[in-house]
Amino acid sequence: MELKLKHYEKIEATDVEMEGAENVKVRWLISEEDAPNFAMRMFEFEPKGHTPLHTHNYEHEIFILEGEGVLTYEKKEYEFKKGDFIFIPPNKEHQITNTKDKLRLLCFIPLKQ
Amino acid sequence: MELKLKHYEKIEATDVEMEGAENVKVRWLISEEDAPNFAMRMFEFEPKGHTPLHTHNYEHEIFILEGEGVLTYEKKEYEFKKGDFIFIPPNKEHQITNTKDKLRLLCFIPLKQ
Repeated sequence: MELKLKHYEKIEATDVEMEGAENVKVRWLISEEDAPNFAMRMFEFEPKGHTPLHTHNYEHEIFILEGEGVLTYEKKEYEFKKGDFIFIPPNKEHQITNTKDKLRLLCFIPLKQ
Repeated sequence: MELKLKHYEKIEATDVEMEGAENVKVRWLISEEDAPNFAMRMFEFEPKGHTPLHTHNYEHEIFILEGEGVLTYEKKEYEFKKGDFIFIPPNKEHQITNTKDKLRLLCFIPLKQ
């Protein structure tokens, strides 16, 4: 493993390919090529962009860098904004929707599941 | 495990107690009480604040939210600024020093070592 120190803009943003995702891009800042335990991804949502409503067996740890949005979690809606952090437990249905201008967040996931 | 969604200012900032740390505070945003695999901490450095030069057997994943500083890593110095991310591998000597005004960063560590 090596030191990695870069500006996030040096990492390419690609469309999120999950079915049901719209106007969301992801940058894999720290991935399994770099790190042993968890990955750091940056997501950027255009206005009205969203992830699909989905479930998986691992958690999310999220920090909101810019913008505002709504988390749909187990059929309830929770507003969030810049400076908020979110822990989403494993196996809970969730969706993130941008409700304003640009939304930018960090989302961490474990690499060993 | 439960959903956690808060603004970072709702979590208390306390002095970093490590010997050799100066003018650094930490907020444990997501800790072992909340999450199974890794912790989210926010560090806030006053001008000239720094962590000690130290080593441990786990990695850091860092994202710079505000400000500028220098990473000392294995006896070399690397400048960083807002929008940079850093992966510090396990067992490598490192220190973070604030070189401007307020420095604010997220630092993630594994909970199982």
